[in-house]
Amino acid sequence: MLLLTFEGIDGSGKSTQARLLDKYLRENGHETLLVREPGGTELSERIRSILLEPDVNVRPMAELLLFSAARTQLVAERVRPALDDGKIVICDRFYDSTTAYQGAGRGVSQQLSGEWLQSFHRRVTDGLVPDCTYLVELAPDTARVRRDEDEADGDRMEAEDQDFYHRVAAAYDALADEHSDRIQRLDGHRSIEALHATIRADVEALLGEDSGTAHARTGSSDP
Amino acid sequence: MLLLTFEGIDGSGKSTQARLLDKYLRENGHETLLVREPGGTELSERIRSILLEPDVNVRPMAELLLFSAARTQLVAERVRPALDDGKIVICDRFYDSTTAYQGAGRGVSQQLSGEWLQSFHRRVTDGLVPDCTYLVELAPDTARVRRDEDEADGDRMEAEDQDFYHRVAAAYDALADEHSDRIQRLDGHRSIEALHATIRADVEALLGEDSGTAHARTGSSDP
Repeated sequence: MLLLTFEGIDGSGKSTQARLLDKYLRENGHETLLVREPGGTELSERIRSILLEPDVNVRPMAELLLFSAARTQLVAERVRPALDDGKIVICDRFYDSTTAYQGAGRGVSQQLSGEWLQSFHRRVTDGLVPDCTYLVELAPDTARVRRDEDEADGDRMEAEDQDFYHRVAAAYDALADEHSDRIQRLDGHRSIEALHATIRADVEALLGEDSGTAHARTGSSDP
Repeated sequence: MLLLTFEGIDGSGKSTQARLLDKYLRENGHETLLVREPGGTELSERIRSILLEPDVNVRPMAELLLFSAARTQLVAERVRPALDDGKIVICDRFYDSTTAYQGAGRGVSQQLSGEWLQSFHRRVTDGLVPDCTYLVELAPDTARVRRDEDEADGDRMEAEDQDFYHRVAAAYDALADEHSDRIQRLDGHRSIEALHATIRADVEALLGEDSGTAHARTGSSDP
């Protein structure tokens, strides 16, 4: 019924916000599905376990294709059916992560035009576009401190230098400009509670607007 | 130096021909690399092991992306370096398999135009196009008898009905028409020895033509 995605660099606090929103909605009588990428299906978890291994050599383009394989399976097997059942689906990461991380962070976008990558995402998700994307913005250096405090487990996805995170953050910034109708910027330096209150109010407004007729968008011009 | 690929439906005899050609070339003083898809790198073998499991639910588009992830890694990690070293690379399956199996066999091409799929393959292989593709053609019903005699191990990739193989064979047929400059049809009903002799003579001719200047093609209009 409604597809909400959370985006941001590692350590931005987006996963906390996704969980808080999910809890809030369930406590208020909504049926929800909370998933994180890559994961959420047997295949996607298998792919996740490959991506998390620090010793397997994975080229940037292969990484992009693996995240996308996990996503297409997740959409077909769980997200679409949940939306069809009238649930609110909350995704901790979706295709904007691929544009930011593999595209800009790992440099695949040097081989692929932004336009081609968007046409690719559209095919991977079978045209599904989030109703709203919450982008939790945090300075990469602040995010690093938070990650260090979390005792990073040293997997391949997080073992990146700061230049990488600066490229990812810049890509998110550009995406938010380009898709300002869909992507909502949130200041990740604010407290967890303050951010949650903002998101909660926004989702309540979305639910009010869309009551009775809401559907996750399909086939719009984005991506 | 030269990229040769073998294509055909399961049971067509293409893997036998790939091995025989590799052996012949090595015995005649050539340096070769023989790889099969999906496989040939640590990542690609991991992907292969997921694809071979009969119990994991893999949607057609996810399958297409997984084969392509395995391929992009194989090209970057092994095929390109071998070509740069002057080797003859023999691939048991390449992107034509994806067009035929996932595109036509599993029906992904109903969502993707042939043109888009070709642009996708080009990005996956970073523009690498085989110098020659040997398509071993065999009637699907004959191929089935051969597979049965081989004591099929019942993995997910081979557990398909005959309609599937008819669609795959028809797709190969269309590809051979479309890319007649690159794809060479071979009659898989002929004996192993007779087929090998034909392929051997063709490769010798290619090596004669290309001596000194040969390079696997990059960036041509195919795909």
